[in-house]
Parts: sequence; C-alpha cells; structure tokens
Amino acid sequence: MLMKAQEIMTRNVVKVKGSATIAEAVALMKENNIRCLIVDRRREDDAYGIITETDVVNQVAAYGKDPQQVRVYEVMTKPCIVVNPDLGVEYVARLFSQANIHHAPVIQHEVLGLISTSDILRKSDFVNNPKEKLLEEEIEKAIAHAREECHNKGNTSQECAVAWDVVEELQAEAAHQKAEKRYDLGQGG
Amino acid sequence: MLMKAQEIMTRNVVKVKGSATIAEAVALMKENNIRCLIVDRRREDDAYGIITETDVVNQVAAYGKDPQQVRVYEVMTKPCIVVNPDLGVEYVARLFSQANIHHAPVIQHEVLGLISTSDILRKSDFVNNPKEKLLEEEIEKAIAHAREECHNKGNTSQECAVAWDVVEELQAEAAHQKAEKRYDLGQGG
Amino acid sequence: MLMKAQEIMTRNVVKVKGSATIAEAVALMKENNIRCLIVDRRREDDAYGIITETDVVNQVAAYGKDPQQVRVYEVMTKPCIVVNPDLGVEYVARLFSQANIHHAPVIQHEVLGLISTSDILRKSDFVNNPKEKLLEEEIEKAIAHAREECHNKGNTSQECAVAWDVVEELQAEAAHQKAEKRYDLGQGG
Amino acid sequence: MLMKAQEIMTRNVVKVKGSATIAEAVALMKENNIRCLIVDRRREDDAYGIITETDVVNQVAAYGKDPQQVRVYEVMTKPCIVVNPDLGVEYVARLFSQANIHHAPVIQHEVLGLISTSDILRKSDFVNNPKEKLLEEEIEKAIAHAREECHNKGNTSQECAVAWDVVEELQAEAAHQKAEKRYDLGQGG
Amino acid sequence: MLMKAQEIMTRNVVKVKGSATIAEAVALMKENNIRCLIVDRRREDDAYGIITETDVVNQVAAYGKDPQQVRVYEVMTKPCIVVNPDLGVEYVARLFSQANIHHAPVIQHEVLGLISTSDILRKSDFVNNPKEKLLEEEIEKAIAHAREECHNKGNTSQECAVAWDVVEELQAEAAHQKAEKRYDLGQGG
Amino acid sequence: MLMKAQEIMTRNVVKVKGSATIAEAVALMKENNIRCLIVDRRREDDAYGIITETDVVNQVAAYGKDPQQVRVYEVMTKPCIVVNPDLGVEYVARLFSQANIHHAPVIQHEVLGLISTSDILRKSDFVNNPKEKLLEEEIEKAIAHAREECHNKGNTSQECAVAWDVVEELQAEAAHQKAEKRYDLGQGG
Repeated sequence: MLMKAQEIMTRNVVKVKGSATIAEAVALMKENNIRCLIVDRRREDDAYGIITETDVVNQVAAYGKDPQQVRVYEVMTKPCIVVNPDLGVEYVARLFSQANIHHAPVIQHEVLGLISTSDILRKSDFVNNPKEKLLEEEIEKAIAHAREECHNKGNTSQECAVAWDVVEELQAEAAHQKAEKRYDLGQGG
Repeated sequence: MLMKAQEIMTRNVVKVKGSATIAEAVALMKENNIRCLIVDRRREDDAYGIITETDVVNQVAAYGKDPQQVRVYEVMTKPCIVVNPDLGVEYVARLFSQANIHHAPVIQHEVLGLISTSDILRKSDFVNNPKEKLLEEEIEKAIAHAREECHNKGNTSQECAVAWDVVEELQAEAAHQKAEKRYDLGQGG
Repeated sequence: MLMKAQEIMTRNVVKVKGSATIAEAVALMKENNIRCLIVDRRREDDAYGIITETDVVNQVAAYGKDPQQVRVYEVMTKPCIVVNPDLGVEYVARLFSQANIHHAPVIQHEVLGLISTSDILRKSDFVNNPKEKLLEEEIEKAIAHAREECHNKGNTSQECAVAWDVVEELQAEAAHQKAEKRYDLGQGG
Repeated sequence: MLMKAQEIMTRNVVKVKGSATIAEAVALMKENNIRCLIVDRRREDDAYGIITETDVVNQVAAYGKDPQQVRVYEVMTKPCIVVNPDLGVEYVARLFSQANIHHAPVIQHEVLGLISTSDILRKSDFVNNPKEKLLEEEIEKAIAHAREECHNKGNTSQECAVAWDVVEELQAEAAHQKAEKRYDLGQGG
Repeated sequence: MLMKAQEIMTRNVVKVKGSATIAEAVALMKENNIRCLIVDRRREDDAYGIITETDVVNQVAAYGKDPQQVRVYEVMTKPCIVVNPDLGVEYVARLFSQANIHHAPVIQHEVLGLISTSDILRKSDFVNNPKEKLLEEEIEKAIAHAREECHNKGNTSQECAVAWDVVEELQAEAAHQKAEKRYDLGQGG
Repeated sequence: MLMKAQEIMTRNVVKVKGSATIAEAVALMKENNIRCLIVDRRREDDAYGIITETDVVNQVAAYGKDPQQVRVYEVMTKPCIVVNPDLGVEYVARLFSQANIHHAPVIQHEVLGLISTSDILRKSDFVNNPKEKLLEEEIEKAIAHAREECHNKGNTSQECAVAWDVVEELQAEAAHQKAEKRYDLGQGG
C-alpha cells in the first residue's frame, strides 16, 4: 500500500493574518522553524492562502523592500492548491511537480496539516517501496486472479470480464506512471 | 453574498476509464456536448484525473496520431486540481487564472460536478455584482459597526479591538483583490 | 487529403470595439453563444485583436473588478496570432498547442472566420483520418512512383532523383509529425 | 505614419529542406551571414517552418549531438508564426515579445521576406518616432476635428457622434499601448 | 553595507558523483540534513552540477520510479547557475527569483559553499536593514557631498559633475530596485 | 578537447550606465554593431547587468515608448547570469538553452568578454567535433587504460578500481549529454 498524505504531513500548522506584516511572518517562521504559514479563511466561501519562505525572499528581499511595510496579503498565494488527506504520496509529488509548488495544506473540512517536498523526501517510503514495484506486484496478482475467475466461472462469464478490466486499468495506471511527460502550466485544459 | 462553485457548476459529469481510447473519449464528448471528462479514482488513495478537449487537440490531433491507438491515460492530467463546493466564484476564477486551467471537478468526498471558465462567464453574477463592490459595502458596514462598538463598550474594550480587526482583515482582502499580480506557475513556494 | 481551416471554421464572427466595456463584451458573447470576439483593425497597418471568455474570467472576474468599468483594450490580446484559410487542420492544432491558444481568426486580406479548439474536435475528421495514416499512404505511393520512374528513366536520370527527393521529404514530414516535443514559448529562436 | 513590416524586412530569404542535415543548415547560415532559414511548404495546405541559430545551438550543440546526423525537421518550428507585410513595426515588436520569438517570415500568399528583432532595432524609426508621440498627435487632431464637426453640424448630429467615436478609439489604442502587461504564453484564450 | 553571499552561505558542502544512484543521494541528504548536493567538476572546462530535494521528489518520487535504478545524472541540473562570494544578498535573492531556483553553489575558482532561500530568510539582515533604506541614506549622503563639491570647486568643475553622476547612478539603482517587474525565463535577451 | 568560452567570446565589450537613456543605448549598439551592452558594477558587492537588442525591442519598441524617456535600468537584467572563461562551449550552449538567454558576460574577477548564441554557431567547432564523438573516444581510451591497469596491478588493486571509476563517470556524462530533457525555468530546485 502507498503511504498517504496524512501519514507524512506536519501537524504543526501556524497561521498568520493577511493584514500582518512580512516582518511578523518572518518572525513566526523563525520561531517555529518552519517554511510556510497558512492564511486562514474568514468564512466558508473564502479560500485558504499560503505564504512561503520563497514568497518572502523572491518578492520582498529581492527588491530590497522594507518587511515592516509590506503586508502578507501582498505576497501570499490565495487561493492555494490543497491536498486531500487520503491522497497517495506519489500523487502529492506529481501534483507538486505539475503545479511547481513545494508546500500545500492538507484539508478535509478544515486544515489538518501541511505537506512539503521535504516531508516527501524525508518521511515517505518512496526509496524502499517505489510505486512502480508496488504496481507490478498488484498487476501480477490481478492477472492471477483473472485467470482463476475465468477458469472457475468460464471465459465468457461476467466475473471473468470484470477481472480483466481490473488488470487493464492497472496496466493503464502503470503506463501513466511511467509517462514522464512535461506538463503545461498545470492541467492541460 | 458571493455565488459559490456549487451554484454554477454543471452536475452532468461524464466519466471515462484511463484505458479507454481517445476515439471513445471524443465520442463521449460529442454525444454529451461537453468539453471534458473525469477519470474516476479506483480507491481512496487514488487521484482524480481529467481529460479535456484541449488535451485531445493539442496532444493527439496536433501530431496526427491515430485516436484509435492512443489511450486516455496518455493525455489525461492526473492528479487534477479540485474545487470545494463552497468556494466563492471569484476564487475559482483566480485559481483557474493562476493554474492556467479551464475546467475542474467540484469535490466533497465525491465528485459533485464540474466547473469551467464558461460556467463562470455564463452563470455567475460577476457582471452585476463584482466583488470589489461587495467588499466596499462590507467594509463600510464593518466600520460603522466598529465605531458603534467602541462608542458603546469604550475605546479600550476588547469588543472595540475585535471589531477593528475585522475592518483591517476586510481591507487586506480588498487590497489583495486588486493586486492583479502575475503569478508564477502556481503558488510561489 | 487533410481538411483545411476554412472547412471547419465558424463564419459567424462578432466584432467589438476596443473602447467597449467588458460588460458589453460579455453581453455579446452570451447573446451570440460564442466564446470570443474580434477587435477590428482601424486601418491596414493596424493589427487584429481578440478577446476571449478566458481573458474576461481570468483578468476581470478573478480580481472582482467591475465589468462596467473595465474596457476591452485592457484585456484583449493584440496583435493576435492568425491562421491562413488553406492551412491543414493538424497544423492549426499544432500552432494552438505551441502558442497555448484556443481561438484564432482565419484571415486572407480580411477576417473570413474564427477557428477554435472545439471546431477541431467537433468538425474535423482527425479521428477517422489521422494524418499519420494519410502520410503512410502518401509515402507508399511516392515510393512506388519513384521505383517506376527509376525503372523507366534509369537509375541515374533526373526524374529518378527527383522522385526519391519527394519520398525523402515525405519521410521527414512523417518523422516531424511524430516528434511530440514540447515547444518553448512559441517558436524557438 | 508608422513604418510597416515590409519596409524593414530582409528580402534575401534562404530556404532549406526539412530533410537537410543541421551541418548543411549551419553552412547555409554562415555562407549567407544570416540567423535563420525558412523551410518551404510542399503544397498550399502545408505550413511554413523556420529554423534559427538558437534552435541549432540549444537543441544540437547544447547536447553535443553530431550535426551530420541530425535533420532540420527534428529542430525546426513548424508551423511558424507569420507576419503580414502591412503590419506596423510596433505591432511586430509586440507580437515578438508576446510569442517569445526573434524572427518571422513576412507572408502574403508567398514568402516576401524575413523580419527580425535586429531589423526592428536597426532599420525602423522607433527611436525618433515612438508610437506614443504619433498617437498623441493623432488624438489632438481628432479632437480638433470632432470639435469642428460638432460646431458645424450640431452637437446632436451623426457627424459629431462619429467624430468623437474616432477620438475614443484612438484613446483606447493609446491606453492599450501603455499597458505593458506581461502576456501569457501567447494569446490568453 | 549589504551582507554578502559568503557571510550567510553554508560551508558544509556535500558532493555526489553523477553515477551515484538516487537512493545514495537521498541517504546523503538525510544523513547530513541538507536539501541539495553538488556534482563536482571532473576538470576545469567541466561544469558544476546540482541535485536538490525537489529534483528527486518531482522527477523520481512523482513517477513512482525506483531510486535504486535512477542515477544522479538523470535528474541533476548541469551546468548550474553559480554565485560570486562577494555578491550582495539582495542580488542573490533577485537572481533566485528570476531563475526560479532555491539553491546555488558559491564559487571563486572552487566551491566555497552553498546558498539557499532559507539562508537568505534566516541568516541575512533583510528584515532590519532593507536595501531601500540603505540606498536612501546613501543617496542623501551623495547629494550632500555633491553640493559640497560644487560649492567648493565651482558648479562647472569636473569634481562637481562627477559627484552628481554618482547621485544619478544611485537613483537609477534605487529605481531599478523598486521595479518589481516579472522577468522572462532568465535574462531577457 | 572541447573549445572553451574564452576561445570564442567577443573581447570588444561595450559598457553603458544604468542611468543612460534607451536612445543612447541603441546608438551604442548601432555604432559598435553589437547586440548587447554590459551595465558595470559600482563596487564588488554589486551585480553585473546586461541589456540586449531584444530587451529594447520587446520592452520599449513594442509599447511605442519614447526611447529618449526610458532609462537603461528600467529594461536591463540585473543580476545577469555569468560564464566562467574555462567553461566548455557545449556547456555554455546548455546553460543558454536552460536559462532561455542568448548573451552572457564571461567573467573572472572582471569582465573578459561577451559570449552569444551567434559566437557558438559561428566560431566554435561543434559541427566538426561534436561532444558525443569526443566522449566516445575518451570512453574507449579510459576502458583500454582500465583494462591495462587491472592487468598490470591486479583486478583487486586500488589502481584498477580508480580506473573503472573514471570510465563510469565518463559514461554517466555521455548519458547525461544525450538526455535532452526540457528543463524547468532554470535549475530545478
């Protein structure tokens, strides 16, 4: 089984107001030894925002601006891309790669945690259990199962057809996994 | 009040398998007069995928490939960016603008619908009720309320401070709304 | 034979002035059930402009701006990329893919129509007659013809050399067709 | 009056076949002291291609590939963005800026010439006659004319309204000219 | 005075061979608690390479590849952008922002250290001494000096002219500092 | 041996002040028949800047701005990416390709020259001595040497192991050379 976002996310989420200064945001990051802060929603039709180390360096330090004068809302990203707690870690990595992001809040009704590129590198098991191996094993099992079903229920049975459908879908996923295409800026359409 | 994603989304969601051919996907789009299909999850740690008209034209037709030979998983985007049903329409538009996408599934535990650039243009009320006007009215009310609180409870009361905090956050949101900065490829960090 | 741009373009082109408001542009789009408008040239050294659904959503709705206050010239793209009426549909698709556009005017001295990603998906025959098949047939015929020429006119004849040149060019085109490289932002140089 | 593309284009266009080697293309560039070559159409539904110095350096030299082994069709851009001979030079510059290109063929039925960033810098009069000055003068004249028309024909006359429409369109163009926004990858929609 | 790259860089540089596996690179990152490794030059006409946490997550984990099978040279960036040890921290930030990078080796003949976005946020003094303040003070001093020179040596003296040249250059730098334009992909030309 | 940056660079470097007008910069480019100018450092913690033909055309001419009114610092790129004089020409090409640039100063303590895409195309020997051939020869020699070492010193000797390490690194470089992946915007991390 793949690890899920919620298994490797950081539960210590620090929030900041959109009206706070960048100096205050930097102080929060340093104190908590973290690289991003969440800007909370004001009500349910509002969006979550995020402000990262990179936002501060690239948009404030790079222009020599005074962090006492710049506000969080001027550099935050809102709405931000969010991750479902059950999403497999490889999919989180792929989403990060596609969207060119390094941090995202993990959300189910409310913010449960934060997940980052570092969390994936350090806490997930992608080195020992790469998905391509897991998928290969799954496909082998599905093929064995399909053969059994067709043998037991007959080659023209519903069960046999369904079992081979599962194999086909797994093979499609494995092929998709390998297709290391370069995405557009986000999803294509 | 802002309109929400679920108020303008299209409820007629058509799904396709990752192992289907592009020819089958195109037939589904034509039959249903739609511009994108959802590729369903196989289990809860799986991700949703999406395949759009643009994916087919840009990745299959543009290269003269045979749509009978190309599979959905070769051109779909998975995982795709998803939208919460309660998200305000202006935020959906901003997310689309940032991520350079035109379609996204609306999800709460399961797929509730699809929202597109066309839905925002045609079904939302952004022409008659632009958010900048709504925010201006909200700020005026919040200021009046803050003055009243401070008058009634005293300028140093907790209530007075809280009421002005609300004003400050609304002003930050209005300023953020106007900040038509060009985003990076997704969120900055 | 490949289909050409003029065979699938939409002839109903609606124009808008650069000084019109976005609210007026949206009304025109809704009335005519279309997704983009052409901003006409004022004289022959002027350029055509275009304004699409996406421009309005991403640049006006996404920032909560008042569509009564924003003008077409603030969000249109001018000059826009144009398409020749004789261009093969696959090349239109490839141009769209390279330039990340979804609509373009079809022009020969004046605007003849509009062509979009949807027109290519819905009206062209790329599903039944993919270019790779057409090219394969053309190459087979050219090879047969070259063999005949060389047989009849001699292996060192001018006609034999010319006939093989045609084969070589067709093979180059087929190879280029398959080369699904990701372009830079437009043409490379 | 603005200068037009055909006034500053280079008329000496050198063509190359798609099946030629990169070594041959480089030899042609050096011999003719030029930075790009046109890949001709084979018939009228075909597209023009282009291969530039940058394509060769970035796609062949950068990877240490053998230029005797790589063919033009592997690195050319086809279809390429084309320019109308009557297009004003400022619009050519804007198109180049938007599409991130430095060369384009000038086409009316056939290839008339090539226009490049260098041609604009060296041969056009943008230093002495910047468009913003030309537009200012045009607007002043149009206002004077509108005042005269309204004075002579009456403030409610058709002629008066038309004359002010011209002023409004010129002002929209001037405003658009100043709007130095960063484009997406090509036109927005 | 601005802080320089060498004052905030990390001196603990860990190197890896291009032929090492990704599994080995990840182990080195974890052991040393670092986010990037340098791939050393083999001789002086060779280039430095870099491999980061993000490269591993986005190019290996995101595709479910087996880190025991993928080599460093398949995902590293080589050549990488390098930083001079004397470069002011604000300029490092601006270079990072322009090039969309988060780490770079600091080099003078050999690798002296590594500098990252985190180093800038955590170790530099951009919060307390933003460059816009330093420049304002410098400009004030330069103006006072220029006035004195012109008073003492005469308004038409060489010294007076030179002193005002210094003021002009400082003002240009301050204006450039504020010009928070969005860069192309790297330097424009 | 590969050619180095300093062997093909242009030594005639023309500098311009950040406070000069674009009209002055264009005059310098025309007079010297060059395509870019260097903006000098004011002191050692300062960065080098660059202004190219493309910057002027895309940011001034494209918007019809008056080149007498726009200053160099408004369109220059600072800091700019720099090249080491010893860097192999193929690596310069790869750096240009990755960073989407066409010109860079060659620097060792001070500016030694300028190198451009045209210099690589016209002055380097990449056509006759492509790096893939040089590497193949080097690998063959290294293998022969390794075999000799192992034969002479024994298969378990230090010298034998070191010699095969050299082979492995050369093979990694050759594989990297061929890996014509599309880079992100600069180095990945």
